[in-house]
Amino acid sequence: MTTGQQPSTARGLSRRHLLLGGAAAGIGAAGAIGIDLAGKAGASSSAVVVPLNGAETVPFFGLHQAGIETPPQAHASLVALNLRDTVDRAALTRMMRILTGDAARLTQGEGALADSEPELAVTPARLTITFGFGPGLVSRAAGEAPGWLRPLPAFGVDRLDPAWSGGDLLIQVAADDPVTIAHSTRMLLKDLRSFATIHWVQTGFRRASGSEKPGTTMRNLFGQVDGTVNPVPGTDDFERLVWATTDNPGWLAGGTGFVLRRISMDLDKWDRLDRAGRESALGRTLATGAPLTGTKEQDEPDFTATTPLGFPIIPEYSHLRRARSENRAERIVRRGYNYDEVPAGEGVSNSGLLFVSFQSDVDRQFVPLQQRLDTLDLLNEWTTPIGSAVFAIPPGCSPGGYIGDTLF
Amino acid sequence: MTTGQQPSTARGLSRRHLLLGGAAAGIGAAGAIGIDLAGKAGASSSAVVVPLNGAETVPFFGLHQAGIETPPQAHASLVALNLRDTVDRAALTRMMRILTGDAARLTQGEGALADSEPELAVTPARLTITFGFGPGLVSRAAGEAPGWLRPLPAFGVDRLDPAWSGGDLLIQVAADDPVTIAHSTRMLLKDLRSFATIHWVQTGFRRASGSEKPGTTMRNLFGQVDGTVNPVPGTDDFERLVWATTDNPGWLAGGTGFVLRRISMDLDKWDRLDRAGRESALGRTLATGAPLTGTKEQDEPDFTATTPLGFPIIPEYSHLRRARSENRAERIVRRGYNYDEVPAGEGVSNSGLLFVSFQSDVDRQFVPLQQRLDTLDLLNEWTTPIGSAVFAIPPGCSPGGYIGDTLF
Repeated sequence: MTTGQQPSTARGLSRRHLLLGGAAAGIGAAGAIGIDLAGKAGASSSAVVVPLNGAETVPFFGLHQAGIETPPQAHASLVALNLRDTVDRAALTRMMRILTGDAARLTQGEGALADSEPELAVTPARLTITFGFGPGLVSRAAGEAPGWLRPLPAFGVDRLDPAWSGGDLLIQVAADDPVTIAHSTRMLLKDLRSFATIHWVQTGFRRASGSEKPGTTMRNLFGQVDGTVNPVPGTDDFERLVWATTDNPGWLAGGTGFVLRRISMDLDKWDRLDRAGRESALGRTLATGAPLTGTKEQDEPDFTATTPLGFPIIPEYSHLRRARSENRAERIVRRGYNYDEVPAGEGVSNSGLLFVSFQSDVDRQFVPLQQRLDTLDLLNEWTTPIGSAVFAIPPGCSPGGYIGDTLF
Repeated sequence: MTTGQQPSTARGLSRRHLLLGGAAAGIGAAGAIGIDLAGKAGASSSAVVVPLNGAETVPFFGLHQAGIETPPQAHASLVALNLRDTVDRAALTRMMRILTGDAARLTQGEGALADSEPELAVTPARLTITFGFGPGLVSRAAGEAPGWLRPLPAFGVDRLDPAWSGGDLLIQVAADDPVTIAHSTRMLLKDLRSFATIHWVQTGFRRASGSEKPGTTMRNLFGQVDGTVNPVPGTDDFERLVWATTDNPGWLAGGTGFVLRRISMDLDKWDRLDRAGRESALGRTLATGAPLTGTKEQDEPDFTATTPLGFPIIPEYSHLRRARSENRAERIVRRGYNYDEVPAGEGVSNSGLLFVSFQSDVDRQFVPLQQRLDTLDLLNEWTTPIGSAVFAIPPGCSPGGYIGDTLF
């Protein structure tokens, strides 16, 4: 439903209105709200309608699943389910056909097949629904699993809670509207009633659509500019890091690997650190996100620069330095969300990051990075991984096909 | 900072840009994102900049507190705290001075006084922070409490959990951006560390800013158009129902009464009801929200109309009929939010409504309404109040004053 650069809309535009492609494309995926300038701005010949951002859709069908290249929406709900014992290969096929059909409808602003509240489905707000398969599901399907599809190796910093870890089936539901997330998630969970039970649900958020200039790098709840060097969809870099087949089994061509780390951020303890201490831990300035050796967020860090006393300006154990690899193939694409839950006891925060990364080979890309951070990252003092999960994200499908049809 | 009808912005607009008042007012408080049409639409003489909706502010100081007349933002966090035993009248004054100062700053897009992450404060997104006093706080201040400032009478439908009920101090934090909510709430809770402990936190959501046409009545997670007859801010009706002094003590002039009901909605059970059954329970059609005797949402219901068989078209025990009073003074102003939490066990939903209402006299306005619903509302079959709280909302204050200065 997308035409060129224009955001697509789930509902048609009134004939009285003229959609100016340039203006609409200018706002891109960040969305905007209906404005009719005719007769107001004295520009009677040029009416402008910027579609409601609730009406924007992201195509469902394609070579890849949506929700990976898609610019991150404001809200996400990540749900992991465990298959019921009775679910065999044939049932898995039925399950994925049903889920695919409803995901295709919901993302285009249509009700699910048996939608009990179809009126809640008319505001897709860039809804994407992305499915991932855990080791248990691939094994139930008697499929070949990529070598990396297993729990991550244990890291010294981990304090994992099984209640936030693992799972057979992942559903990533993301949209710019929280009502859309709630309704869509519920429709999919209803589809799954006879196939699976909920293992965990993790919800997160970023800035609202239209809150900030498009392209602004997210800040996490530490106030840290987070994700500056993320590879950009459409570049060779992104293609190679995310979709490369490497040694993955054939059914995963066009798919990728998904890692979730639920990282608790101790804001109460972070409070006791002054800005200089925070910037040392990060290797970047808080105000702009620039490396301590630069002035702008995108400046390349100079790891050789030293202070007059001879100490490195970007500390040896800073997050910026430890997260970097000499090996450009050891990179990942991040697409995470903040979380903020009700604090327990005397604390005033229970917050953190749903760290989500996509990479074609988890063992070759994510694991070496995490090993470097595990050994010596100053940030470990304030962050603790409390959940961990790995899923294989199958490729997209064409109309008539279904997600997972290359596996079953 | 608000000028006429134009949404105010926390940051200035570039000189290269011309803000067209008409266009900006057209989008009103629903907000939009920067668009520069110059050189794109061939309208070189009329550049349009619609401010980022993250930059919009709502004035803090005034006769009334903000967050009541303010068109509901997309997100809200309601926090109730219990005062520590050591907090006396003098400490309460200090507490409210500190909270007022930080609320005034945060709502205008400035960091709190000791803001540890000031970069997270620059996107107010229509942030409002509204304070309410529970019976315990008013008594600690040795103030005169309005007669209605106590737990609501027990209703037959109630299944109240003390963990969702009561409290000494209420903070309603509402904004169009979830990061703003998280940061602001945390700053206020840090201010309160030595004064109070968290009793409960309840978070809710509506459609995102810009998702729907401004003025669209919210739908709850039943799909029900919810709040059609709500009095409109600025009307005599609203003024009388919300701000009337009635028999309230003098310190409450310019203030009002606040009721929160946490209403669990059994979506799984609602699923088993067909559309005709749902519409009978509501007294309205699901598609448009029109009364069953009308065609448009705002149509007046005709309670005398009958079917050919002689039954009333709007059933006797429908929610629409039971929620109506003959007495126009027995009305309230609603400003609620959906909630959607992780389901437990085999359920696929744990959802409901943070029913919030404002009324100058809880006993005369809310209680009779709830009594009518309690006795015979068909919706009771699918809804259960599981939390309940009443607070007195003190008036606003002027710069130099503080919220509660009429009480202390």
